Amino acid sequence: MKVCSIGIGLIGGAFALALKEHYAKAEIWGMDSSTTHLQEAVELGIIKGVARMNQITDFDLVVISIPVDAIPAKVNEVLPLLNKNALVIDMGSTKKNICEQVENHPRRNQFLATHPIAGTEFSGPKASLSHLFEGALMIVCEAELTRKDLRKNIFEIFQQMGMQLQLMQAKAHDQHLAYVSHLSHISSFMLGKTVLDLEKDESEIFRLAGSGFASTVRLAKSNPTTWTSIFKENKAEVLKSLRAYQANLSLIEEALNNEDEEAVMQLLNSTSRIREIIK
Amino acid sequence: MKVCSIGIGLIGGAFALALKEHYAKAEIWGMDSSTTHLQEAVELGIIKGVARMNQITDFDLVVISIPVDAIPAKVNEVLPLLNKNALVIDMGSTKKNICEQVENHPRRNQFLATHPIAGTEFSGPKASLSHLFEGALMIVCEAELTRKDLRKNIFEIFQQMGMQLQLMQAKAHDQHLAYVSHLSHISSFMLGKTVLDLEKDESEIFRLAGSGFASTVRLAKSNPTTWTSIFKENKAEVLKSLRAYQANLSLIEEALNNEDEEAVMQLLNSTSRIREIIK
Repeated sequence: MKVCSIGIGLIGGAFALALKEHYAKAEIWGMDSSTTHLQEAVELGIIKGVARMNQITDFDLVVISIPVDAIPAKVNEVLPLLNKNALVIDMGSTKKNICEQVENHPRRNQFLATHPIAGTEFSGPKASLSHLFEGALMIVCEAELTRKDLRKNIFEIFQQMGMQLQLMQAKAHDQHLAYVSHLSHISSFMLGKTVLDLEKDESEIFRLAGSGFASTVRLAKSNPTTWTSIFKENKAEVLKSLRAYQANLSLIEEALNNEDEEAVMQLLNSTSRIREIIK
Repeated sequence: MKVCSIGIGLIGGAFALALKEHYAKAEIWGMDSSTTHLQEAVELGIIKGVARMNQITDFDLVVISIPVDAIPAKVNEVLPLLNKNALVIDMGSTKKNICEQVENHPRRNQFLATHPIAGTEFSGPKASLSHLFEGALMIVCEAELTRKDLRKNIFEIFQQMGMQLQLMQAKAHDQHLAYVSHLSHISSFMLGKTVLDLEKDESEIFRLAGSGFASTVRLAKSNPTTWTSIFKENKAEVLKSLRAYQANLSLIEEALNNEDEEAVMQLLNSTSRIREIIK
């Protein structure tokens, strides 16, 4: 199996490592806009070497893990060059736009839209871990539009890596992820900004910060390019969840301002189910 | 050393356990508004038995770890009953109000205001850990108002438990903690509420939630009574930090709404220092 990994950051790198671990004969080549990432990926043995777009026809599988706003153009660039028995998949965190952008492509059935629910706040090939996807949920959108034999092969690969497949419509994916992932990143980035804005003496505050602050602000270490592009691609759903969050913050602000203890207590209690849900 | 622990939840319980570990002869008795907590604390061997307010004079050290809005009254109730060589300390998460409330008490010099920067999202004596305070920062406010010999003894105890002492003015403490602790809890509680509000099918979202959501929402598992009382006691500073946070959320909302990628990128980049600060 000859694989081309377009984008070898955290996700692309981890997928390549997992492939090598489970398929000794897999030969993985890479492309990346960052020559530093390419060098690192070669040095770390993640990829065998650098591939070129005019060689795409030589590959059985092309894996695209680049900022989501660049994915549709890249998939449309790859599809016409693809060997007729090869598959291209993307691993972006948003799915609706990419699915719409390839909807009418004559080779649509050689594309599969995926999103592994895995990652860390770190980025680049150095952050890649071969076990990142083990036990992770792998969301696959509009799988029915992908050629059956190609779909069967890639599903086997995902399962081999220990992923649990979940089929989902692209729109539902983007709605759900806005709430459970994208909004968390906005709240964390802006919390970090607020504390940095308000505090002059950093060493002071951060000595005073317990583990609570560290966990709420952890996602603020995520890659700004990755996330700017996710927010852009999922604008409508992200804004919807952000406004709902702002409305809840206004409710507690008002309750605190009115010294309405009962209302504050009710607001805090309304999340008690989180205790059972997030163990 | 005979110690009375008023409030034996997570913090009071952990302090009692640490005392027993470092002072084999320490005899610890407890009071708590919850008879369940009292029973648990006795069964878990955290306290020897239940103490009564009319026995306070028998103790060398009284440790108050109850909801912060109840602390000033409790300290003022304990001080007159205290043996003249005994000390009462509180471990509340806010310090300005308690310091003001005891400011002019004739026995002010037998009180010490403290705040251990330690805790978890769990509560009750069952959540107590003897090592909770090991390596933790112990903030001590207005220590100069506490009698020198009593102060010296309790500082030795804190250091024996592995805590790092930091002297601080009460007002500065409350300002700093609003940003690095209280605001994190508000953002986490309201994030949890937003997701629970917006999603009907829970099992669905929470399967889709990665570790990012779990960490931003972790503090929403904290005790609502504890936190309602902290927000009330530190109202002015908490509102100040909350409004600064809301202003930053409005900035990113506006940038997303205007599809101003550069502005979004700038906002996300403004937190990059968090990467160096929170390892």
